[in-house]
Amino acid sequence: MIHFDTDYMEGAHPEVMRRLVGTNLEQTPGYGCDDYTARAKDLIREACGQPQAAVQFLVGGTQTNATVIDALLARHEGVLAAESAHINVHEAGAIEASGHKVLTLPAHDGKVLAADVEAYIRNFYRDETYEHMVAPGMLYISHPTELGTLYTLRELEDLSRVCREADIPLYMDGARLGYGLAAEGTDVTLGDVARLCDVFYIGGTKVGALFGEAVVAARPERLPHFFTLVKQHGALLAKGRLLGIQFGTLFTDGLYQRIGAHAVRLALKLKRAFVEKGYRLHLDSPTNQQFVCLPNETIDRLKREATFELWGPRGEMETVVRFVTSWATREEDVDKLIALL
Amino acid sequence: MIHFDTDYMEGAHPEVMRRLVGTNLEQTPGYGCDDYTARAKDLIREACGQPQAAVQFLVGGTQTNATVIDALLARHEGVLAAESAHINVHEAGAIEASGHKVLTLPAHDGKVLAADVEAYIRNFYRDETYEHMVAPGMLYISHPTELGTLYTLRELEDLSRVCREADIPLYMDGARLGYGLAAEGTDVTLGDVARLCDVFYIGGTKVGALFGEAVVAARPERLPHFFTLVKQHGALLAKGRLLGIQFGTLFTDGLYQRIGAHAVRLALKLKRAFVEKGYRLHLDSPTNQQFVCLPNETIDRLKREATFELWGPRGEMETVVRFVTSWATREEDVDKLIALL
Amino acid sequence: MIHFDTDYMEGAHPEVMRRLVGTNLEQTPGYGCDDYTARAKDLIREACGQPQAAVQFLVGGTQTNATVIDALLARHEGVLAAESAHINVHEAGAIEASGHKVLTLPAHDGKVLAADVEAYIRNFYRDETYEHMVAPGMLYISHPTELGTLYTLRELEDLSRVCREADIPLYMDGARLGYGLAAEGTDVTLGDVARLCDVFYIGGTKVGALFGEAVVAARPERLPHFFTLVKQHGALLAKGRLLGIQFGTLFTDGLYQRIGAHAVRLALKLKRAFVEKGYRLHLDSPTNQQFVCLPNETIDRLKREATFELWGPRGEMETVVRFVTSWATREEDVDKLIALL
Amino acid sequence: MIHFDTDYMEGAHPEVMRRLVGTNLEQTPGYGCDDYTARAKDLIREACGQPQAAVQFLVGGTQTNATVIDALLARHEGVLAAESAHINVHEAGAIEASGHKVLTLPAHDGKVLAADVEAYIRNFYRDETYEHMVAPGMLYISHPTELGTLYTLRELEDLSRVCREADIPLYMDGARLGYGLAAEGTDVTLGDVARLCDVFYIGGTKVGALFGEAVVAARPERLPHFFTLVKQHGALLAKGRLLGIQFGTLFTDGLYQRIGAHAVRLALKLKRAFVEKGYRLHLDSPTNQQFVCLPNETIDRLKREATFELWGPRGEMETVVRFVTSWATREEDVDKLIALL
Repeated sequence: MIHFDTDYMEGAHPEVMRRLVGTNLEQTPGYGCDDYTARAKDLIREACGQPQAAVQFLVGGTQTNATVIDALLARHEGVLAAESAHINVHEAGAIEASGHKVLTLPAHDGKVLAADVEAYIRNFYRDETYEHMVAPGMLYISHPTELGTLYTLRELEDLSRVCREADIPLYMDGARLGYGLAAEGTDVTLGDVARLCDVFYIGGTKVGALFGEAVVAARPERLPHFFTLVKQHGALLAKGRLLGIQFGTLFTDGLYQRIGAHAVRLALKLKRAFVEKGYRLHLDSPTNQQFVCLPNETIDRLKREATFELWGPRGEMETVVRFVTSWATREEDVDKLIALL
Repeated sequence: MIHFDTDYMEGAHPEVMRRLVGTNLEQTPGYGCDDYTARAKDLIREACGQPQAAVQFLVGGTQTNATVIDALLARHEGVLAAESAHINVHEAGAIEASGHKVLTLPAHDGKVLAADVEAYIRNFYRDETYEHMVAPGMLYISHPTELGTLYTLRELEDLSRVCREADIPLYMDGARLGYGLAAEGTDVTLGDVARLCDVFYIGGTKVGALFGEAVVAARPERLPHFFTLVKQHGALLAKGRLLGIQFGTLFTDGLYQRIGAHAVRLALKLKRAFVEKGYRLHLDSPTNQQFVCLPNETIDRLKREATFELWGPRGEMETVVRFVTSWATREEDVDKLIALL
Repeated sequence: MIHFDTDYMEGAHPEVMRRLVGTNLEQTPGYGCDDYTARAKDLIREACGQPQAAVQFLVGGTQTNATVIDALLARHEGVLAAESAHINVHEAGAIEASGHKVLTLPAHDGKVLAADVEAYIRNFYRDETYEHMVAPGMLYISHPTELGTLYTLRELEDLSRVCREADIPLYMDGARLGYGLAAEGTDVTLGDVARLCDVFYIGGTKVGALFGEAVVAARPERLPHFFTLVKQHGALLAKGRLLGIQFGTLFTDGLYQRIGAHAVRLALKLKRAFVEKGYRLHLDSPTNQQFVCLPNETIDRLKREATFELWGPRGEMETVVRFVTSWATREEDVDKLIALL
Repeated sequence: MIHFDTDYMEGAHPEVMRRLVGTNLEQTPGYGCDDYTARAKDLIREACGQPQAAVQFLVGGTQTNATVIDALLARHEGVLAAESAHINVHEAGAIEASGHKVLTLPAHDGKVLAADVEAYIRNFYRDETYEHMVAPGMLYISHPTELGTLYTLRELEDLSRVCREADIPLYMDGARLGYGLAAEGTDVTLGDVARLCDVFYIGGTKVGALFGEAVVAARPERLPHFFTLVKQHGALLAKGRLLGIQFGTLFTDGLYQRIGAHAVRLALKLKRAFVEKGYRLHLDSPTNQQFVCLPNETIDRLKREATFELWGPRGEMETVVRFVTSWATREEDVDKLIALL
């Protein structure tokens, strides 16, 4: 059986594991006050071109979103996000449990349009009763989106400009950022992300780490008392160095980029095969998640030898399915899948 | 330099690391829906003598306390706990951030007396205005306590009885449970804990795991929809199997017990040395944390070769300090410290 | 100048004021533990035909919605409501501030369709990842809706059936219930509401009281510890008898019905005038709020002699506006307005 | 039967009722955007000697405390308060339900000592783990306290200085402020309160209004977006003018002062009688609440003709009881009670 369900089916990239094992018996202070963590933060600041940035490591994506959003919003504010955003659909109400409303915008293949953000904010303050309503206090985007799609540099610049004009922070969920930066044809670099977003996170869990996400804020004053908030959200790892070691490894010798490139290359190989065999793409994803519309009988046949997710309920004749590659995907498995199509 | 600061200065027990590395490239479904996790739950149920118990793995202690307490309390209720309880002092308001008040009881060397619990509840419902007040909805205890002390079986039975008579759950924070079960002279077994507490957790982070805590509820209906609450609290690990593999290893071939016994043996060796050299114990801890009152000049001298924590502010002449051992403490380091005394 | 902005521009119905003044110097215990409150609860139980119902008085609408929804939902659940629902738009995030997500359904002239509720719940539990999502835990409807529209008895029965089949409570926001029960052609009685909803409130603020809303739960066990939750939400009035006196007056000698009938008669008179003069109704409301599409120049002309609200942003040529009547509206003011059209 | 249970047993001062009745049929915009409210705010600013102050009216005490504290605290902060403070004991967890911890200080006859506040803050920041703990973010005091006692001007100045040095706001709960300002021998004026506190509220519910509390912030920037937070907390009255009319009346022609003076005079008359008859005062209150230690047989005898509250559980031989006067207390009732002693 070959598996294309998600990008978190294995443990960590072998190089990451090697470093964890190699340092296992060293003794360091807890909560990220160790040299590995300090070094990893420096590497990330350097990779982002933001030497003054604050970097904080957390364990997982939902907790990172909940903690950052809680830190960025005032109590009368909510977070703008696409209707399809992870925080609106698949985080079990973590944002609301912290007291904040998710204010939804139309999703365009998972993306938010700058024009929609601008219109929302303009209409909000035009409404005479706006003080009775939840104010748009920040913008959440994901890159790649939950559908594998990417913002262009121009789109990102527009979102950033709109947010800065409205004086609300732009926050990017980069759970799969590594696969976005490595996408074919993208014109968005890590430096662009760091420059254009007020806060974002570099996903580790899905991109080579055992677990872990690195929150980056180019202007640290955006996240006052963040360490305490991380603790309050139960997101502070006692053995913080585990995160430092992992991200230090990922940001040494270009490992994070190599991981991204590997997964994307295999995903696009798969996409081309779908297209060549005449299947219809659900949308054109340039990253490690591929969505394709398959006849139900094809699905049933493939399921005997491969695992992958149905994207939504099964249709009458055909159904959208998702195939995901990762740093761990073996080319022979992709070839095997292609042969089955 | 030798280190006795805490029990989370190293990574994981080598056997745990070996298993993580050995399974690293296997592919499993996420969120704990894998066979390693299922197997670990079975092992824990067996070790607890509660075949019907619900077991759920979380990442760290604060998030476990916050999630369990949130799950157990109704909105009009608070959690009874010793004034010195971790949830009341060192969790950055995580309990209150979920909307719950910590109702404090006097601490007796970190412990709560059944008589105090009984009196609190009785006085509460005697007060004619009790509907204007936060109802005592559960009891939180830690075992070992934050001060390394332990409940006797009799004390635990009394607490359990008082709670059951009042129909409120008894919850035990077992962050260092392994060191408590291995303590010299304790008459409390894991089976007793599982039988007498409604919910408790078996600490992994401080007892041999890289990270991870295992919540056990003998009566699963006490924690309805717990999986979703864990997600909502940002405490659900994507690669859940990492927790299953670790706890599976800890509960195979008595590893968890061996870890506890090792740390306790060295801690008691250290305690005896303190006593023999004429230092005054701050309190008599039978577990891996030792608290001793040292002259400030001794502290200054030791600090040149060893690290350990001041317990509270530095006194004028002498100060209470804490020395902690763990699964990873080397006997030679203990001997070296003793030689320095 | 004549005013049709809202139904809370005056104080209380003169009969209510008379009773408040008449009892002003009497001494009673606080928090609703007085005879006036007991009597008012009995009158409401009787009017509802639910002798066993729990009745609790609160001060205002937003606090009532927030408190009831908080009481009805478990932590993993959210509240289903029309996109246009007051709780989703105009309550400043009060629901989310208590930790709950509003799960939106399409609004049909402000109403929710039973089929949509049914489909939402069915699709939710069909989704394999539903444990990662906010469960639909109750249904919120308003009657009349924010747009003045009403459910038919059949629609209400369908909603009630769908909710009971899914075992989730149906909650009705009755801020303007008096105007709904008095609407021309409605087949829904107070008894129907009490029978079909699990919890609802009878609005006082907009229907003759100075302030106050009466929460009614036919099955009191739906709202355990509600008194304490009301206090916790800051919604418990010290001089609770003020609410008892007001509702006691409203439910004596049919005052609540008379108030409703008066406002509706004048609103429909106005509606007929709009139609006769050739203006287009925005929708056909049978209650005390009337929405009509007026040319901007008509609006500007009317504004010189009357006040009323624009419903949304001003259009290029014409704009929807709202005219509201109440227990206090004088027929001569309506006639004056009609003459101006 | 004569009643001394509380100071909220009657309705409103007759002059307040007269104004409410006199304006009852006037039409004004909602939510406090009316001229009565504007006028009342001006009168309060003038009485406080703070022409730039922000004033906002809310309905009741618990909601005012919860809303102000929520507005003043950042998420990593808690509120310092006496152990006996109303927010710590009798508000059903309203502060924690908004996510904030109450950090308790020793109570000295209900009062907080500046030295204790100073020591708490100093020790907090000395603790190396303070980032894992809830930061002291504001100070809550009540004046008069829950025990009727008062701060001296010097004590208030000290508290204010300590708070300003620590850069945390000082908030005063003035539920019974009118009775404090009118106390015999007090050297604290309303101007002092307004000058020394960052935020405070002038209680109406217990001092002549039907209901209502006036929040005053000498520096409005301390309470950004306060209107929306009031709405979010369900504390915004639709017919806001009711609050404006009441406070306008109370702050016209010295009514608020007269009310205070009346109640205090009768309370002190009662106190003198207790002392003269040889009863022991529980503490020496200069305001409208008097606490005295009575033999149980005296209590039983008095209870046949008067109502009053036991302060805590009934003792074996004697019990502390509370007698409360108000604007509405009749001198003949006080004389009758004295005759019974």
